Amino acid sequence: MPVSERALIARIRARARNGPALVAGIGDDCSVLRMPPGTEALVTTDFSLENVHFRRAWHPPEVVGHRCLARGLSDIAAMGGDPTAFFLSLALPARLPQTWVDRFLTGMLRLARQLRVPLAGGDTAQSPGGILADIVVVGSVPRGRAILRSGARPGDLLYVTGELGAGAAALDLLFRSHRKMSPASLRKLRADYPRHFQPIPRLAVGRFLRAHHLASAMIDLSDGLSTDLSHICQESRVGADVYAAALPRAKTAGRGARAQGTVVDLRFALHGGDDYELLFTAPPNKRIPSQIAGVRVTPIGQVTRRRTVTLITPDGTLSPLRPQGWEHFRNRSTQ
Amino acid sequence: MPVSERALIARIRARARNGPALVAGIGDDCSVLRMPPGTEALVTTDFSLENVHFRRAWHPPEVVGHRCLARGLSDIAAMGGDPTAFFLSLALPARLPQTWVDRFLTGMLRLARQLRVPLAGGDTAQSPGGILADIVVVGSVPRGRAILRSGARPGDLLYVTGELGAGAAALDLLFRSHRKMSPASLRKLRADYPRHFQPIPRLAVGRFLRAHHLASAMIDLSDGLSTDLSHICQESRVGADVYAAALPRAKTAGRGARAQGTVVDLRFALHGGDDYELLFTAPPNKRIPSQIAGVRVTPIGQVTRRRTVTLITPDGTLSPLRPQGWEHFRNRSTQ
Repeated sequence: MPVSERALIARIRARARNGPALVAGIGDDCSVLRMPPGTEALVTTDFSLENVHFRRAWHPPEVVGHRCLARGLSDIAAMGGDPTAFFLSLALPARLPQTWVDRFLTGMLRLARQLRVPLAGGDTAQSPGGILADIVVVGSVPRGRAILRSGARPGDLLYVTGELGAGAAALDLLFRSHRKMSPASLRKLRADYPRHFQPIPRLAVGRFLRAHHLASAMIDLSDGLSTDLSHICQESRVGADVYAAALPRAKTAGRGARAQGTVVDLRFALHGGDDYELLFTAPPNKRIPSQIAGVRVTPIGQVTRRRTVTLITPDGTLSPLRPQGWEHFRNRSTQ
Repeated sequence: MPVSERALIARIRARARNGPALVAGIGDDCSVLRMPPGTEALVTTDFSLENVHFRRAWHPPEVVGHRCLARGLSDIAAMGGDPTAFFLSLALPARLPQTWVDRFLTGMLRLARQLRVPLAGGDTAQSPGGILADIVVVGSVPRGRAILRSGARPGDLLYVTGELGAGAAALDLLFRSHRKMSPASLRKLRADYPRHFQPIPRLAVGRFLRAHHLASAMIDLSDGLSTDLSHICQESRVGADVYAAALPRAKTAGRGARAQGTVVDLRFALHGGDDYELLFTAPPNKRIPSQIAGVRVTPIGQVTRRRTVTLITPDGTLSPLRPQGWEHFRNRSTQ
């Protein structure tokens, strides 16, 4: 049965949970939030559009809901912030089955519960095209302590959390399947690349780096390392050297004869988007743990005064690392 | 020339202005806002979708931009709040001319400048369908002082600001034109119904009512009086009597032989959306000025214990006033 706009609001409202920060939630002109004293407010908005950021044939509704919220929470993590509440603007085509919406909300609200972020409001509409979601996350950070993109200084070291390239490797296989992936192949792909389907925003890592004054600049890897690093360099007016051999490339989940799993291509780790790991810089005198909140942290290069980004391969070859994440994957996914 | 996503961000960023509340704006993972001490945060999100909320043939780009922001600011007004900053998520079709976007931003940023609300961030994407905008407004209100929908009590009087029905009357003429309205007719329509094309959010009225503890409940008239009044009644668990003769019906701008203008149909004032006036309740012992911040304020009925909404005509006829705004206009505009 398709969803009416009014029924949709009722369903969302019935499944939303209150939190201590929520003075008034769904059901008024605005939501009213009590922000912790001594903090500044963080706000981020992220589209998740059908056939741009996801495809119904590739991404089950729970996955779309999960990724939609994870995108926003990852931005809060990248400031060293704490999420306060989130808002969902959702426009649905008239003929969309009710079960799709229910499963979408299930995936989204499961992640919200895990990370204790209440759904506090949003908007609904009938979509003239595909499924359109816009997620807004409001968070907080102690006054003056947000970790910006602009704080990197020459000499700082460059770090990433987790492993890179799984998102792009999974997307590459999906594209090569020409949209005709069988349910069994899709299941295998989900097992191989869980992080593409259910990325975990690195909130605890971001909070740790902020609380211990460790990071000078930070960004989340949503557009790919080469693109997101160029954002830090641009905002901080610096450059960077990146060591190709140092990059923590993602592996497929190992099983049977391939117990070790397969390491993804270097280009996926360099340019692939949707990893939702954190990229940060820290002064060389700060001791950065090799693991924070159970997540691996790897030094991958350093910040330079010279305002270009250079990739250094093990044989000593230097080549310019240009931002390619955006064009390569984004444009491809909008075809 | 069509707009690339990257060029779009650059254009928005170049035209955004900073405000004192903005610690960090466009160009980071999140925007960082300094909220006034002793306040709670207000958040509202509103879609403006092509062929749902506007049509390119009917609404010039400046009007779309203006209305898009006005929708969000009106929700802040309805809480008695002050806007702090706004965020624009904008997805554009690949072939949209650059001038459309520039004029859209002009209309939006002109209203933002008038009301001193900085554009603090957002998201951009290529749209798989038409133009998709989602506006987020963050505001503030002194702690515990937001005017909710749930505060109406039996015996309270019911008031509206300004005049009702112009939005619906204009939309009706647009629909009856079968999408073939000449530029001259469109110009006349804009002169007749300026409020449909450039609604002014009633921020000063909302702020006055809150500062003087006058209103017990408030909502903005976006879906139409019959629908929005039903929201107040539902949240407050009350009913209401509305006097048809008391409704301040909008007039077309008078000129020439029709210097008095023409009064809109009662059904437009009762069920028409997009007026963005305020509907509020106040205890009978509160003296409500007949004009606030230059805007007329009219008593139109009262709140009852009996949980139905009744329309009372001058001859004493009583009839149930059912929420019709939504179905009547919203569905029609989504065809």
